[in-house]
Amino acid sequence: MFTKGEKIKIVVDAMGGDYAPSNIISGGVDALKESNNRFQIIFVGKEKSIFDELKKFPYENLDYQIINASEVIEMHDSPTAALKQKKDSSISVGLNLVKEKKADAFISAGNTGAVMSASTLILGRIDGVSRPTIGTFFPTEKGKSLLLDAGANVDSKPQHLLEFALMGSIFTSYILGYQNPTVGLLNIGEESSKGNETAQEAYKLLKESSLNFIGNVEGRDILKGKAQIVVCDGFVGNILLKFAESILTLMKFKFKDYASQSFFKKIWVGLMYGTLKTVLKDIDYQEHGGVPLLGVNGVTIIGHGGSTPKAIKNMIFRAEEMVQKNINEHIQQKMKSIL
Amino acid sequence: MFTKGEKIKIVVDAMGGDYAPSNIISGGVDALKESNNRFQIIFVGKEKSIFDELKKFPYENLDYQIINASEVIEMHDSPTAALKQKKDSSISVGLNLVKEKKADAFISAGNTGAVMSASTLILGRIDGVSRPTIGTFFPTEKGKSLLLDAGANVDSKPQHLLEFALMGSIFTSYILGYQNPTVGLLNIGEESSKGNETAQEAYKLLKESSLNFIGNVEGRDILKGKAQIVVCDGFVGNILLKFAESILTLMKFKFKDYASQSFFKKIWVGLMYGTLKTVLKDIDYQEHGGVPLLGVNGVTIIGHGGSTPKAIKNMIFRAEEMVQKNINEHIQQKMKSIL
Repeated sequence: MFTKGEKIKIVVDAMGGDYAPSNIISGGVDALKESNNRFQIIFVGKEKSIFDELKKFPYENLDYQIINASEVIEMHDSPTAALKQKKDSSISVGLNLVKEKKADAFISAGNTGAVMSASTLILGRIDGVSRPTIGTFFPTEKGKSLLLDAGANVDSKPQHLLEFALMGSIFTSYILGYQNPTVGLLNIGEESSKGNETAQEAYKLLKESSLNFIGNVEGRDILKGKAQIVVCDGFVGNILLKFAESILTLMKFKFKDYASQSFFKKIWVGLMYGTLKTVLKDIDYQEHGGVPLLGVNGVTIIGHGGSTPKAIKNMIFRAEEMVQKNINEHIQQKMKSIL
Repeated sequence: MFTKGEKIKIVVDAMGGDYAPSNIISGGVDALKESNNRFQIIFVGKEKSIFDELKKFPYENLDYQIINASEVIEMHDSPTAALKQKKDSSISVGLNLVKEKKADAFISAGNTGAVMSASTLILGRIDGVSRPTIGTFFPTEKGKSLLLDAGANVDSKPQHLLEFALMGSIFTSYILGYQNPTVGLLNIGEESSKGNETAQEAYKLLKESSLNFIGNVEGRDILKGKAQIVVCDGFVGNILLKFAESILTLMKFKFKDYASQSFFKKIWVGLMYGTLKTVLKDIDYQEHGGVPLLGVNGVTIIGHGGSTPKAIKNMIFRAEEMVQKNINEHIQQKMKSIL
């Protein structure tokens, strides 16, 4: 448990992400500068690459360490195989530091599957949690909603969905300040009798729980912000997340196509561009920082592969907050109370 | 089987949809005018309401009939209960005309669940089809893709997914002219080992089939047009469809919010409006016409509740084409060949 006054140590996977190590180091440096060294960062990865990046900044007064890890799990590696073969990867080395209490949190924009598997394997699960879960934020008409599971678990049982909802409620109430957040079960109709067998059973469990369950929500209700927490199996959640991420790409394609029709249209789209970017910023899923893997014995924050330095910085701040607010202890207590 | 020279009779559910009967009658009249009475329309519903609407047009030279149905299944009615209680609904009366060979096709923008259930119940399934399916079109970078099932079936078995793919292939090749259309299995990763149990089994069946199966497609691949037919269980398909339909609503909300910030921004958004509408037309799911319920012994076309007269007109043309091209016979033959 975190006690005030201790300096928090955050492991940053320097090799994870499409723009590693440059975006990662840059984001880490920004986090230390902006927070005035409020925490210590432990960069884990290929020592030389990390140092070469660090040299680009005035880095003398920053509170960091570098710990060497000779291997890199690439974005396209198969998680299970890579974890077996690359024992000295930045992901494994970094998570072991958290396990051995030499650090308090781990952040990575690397191979999501590998970070999830390694976190569960190395850190273990919180007592009472059947399956750790990862969520994703959706922009809505009423602020952010957390949808979980976003792909960590397929063929989830009703009990798992209940656990996802519980962990999501604790996370959003302590971290986003949502008071008694509303929980919706993602389904294909409003009535409790709707949906597949899992959804029908999960509905009953959620209804009997102490959560602020508002019933089923449909695909169209997500962006309206009908529920602050949207629970679903990871198969649906992952497909939905990736679909949502691709919408801006189609829109860009459509605008490009339109602009190519004439010189005037090209100029016109150019004029509109700034406004479109501002208005649709929230819809750009890459702008969001990382999300925690909830349910493991330690803090792991997972970011988008394409994370910008700003996203990395925000992930580090999020990790600090997760430690300070003892989120995992809250989850543990809640799990005990429902067992 | 349809033989050239016969006049096709299309039943139009005059009471189905959010803007019934006005949009329906208006669309029907347009279809008859545009086709120069190439087919006959049988409007089914409350006789007086239908006639009151018809009177708004010069309707004398149109080839139509009106058949009275005293009851209306409302959009919010529970399909099963409504079909039991309202025996004389426009949906039941209309479908019985098709069953009794007094008409060739049925179109409705009414309660989707009720139209699906009644079609399966009254028309019966094509031999070899386990479960009839309904698809939905997604606009992509490479034209339209058909995603199915879009909500008719939950807890689909691998065999059902194979059947959906077969029916979708036949439909898109005869109706959209796609030659040997590509089929993708909606999943959370590219490898055959990915996804839930159903997806893993369905992968094998699809790979062994005679279809042009290109493997798994992810949420992000749909709008790219990676596959012309995207197969999934109706739980995922329905959530995705409704989510996609809600995107424009969030965008409108964002633009409205931006416009409200200043007088200048309001004017600016006003100037952009026309272009946005043109560019994003394809993304407006309400612009698309209806889709057939595939696998029943007869032609049923189901439209969006908010169907415009233009959408209704296109549904009628689609129904005519389904009859002319003997789609159901093709499905029946294909099913025999794989049994």
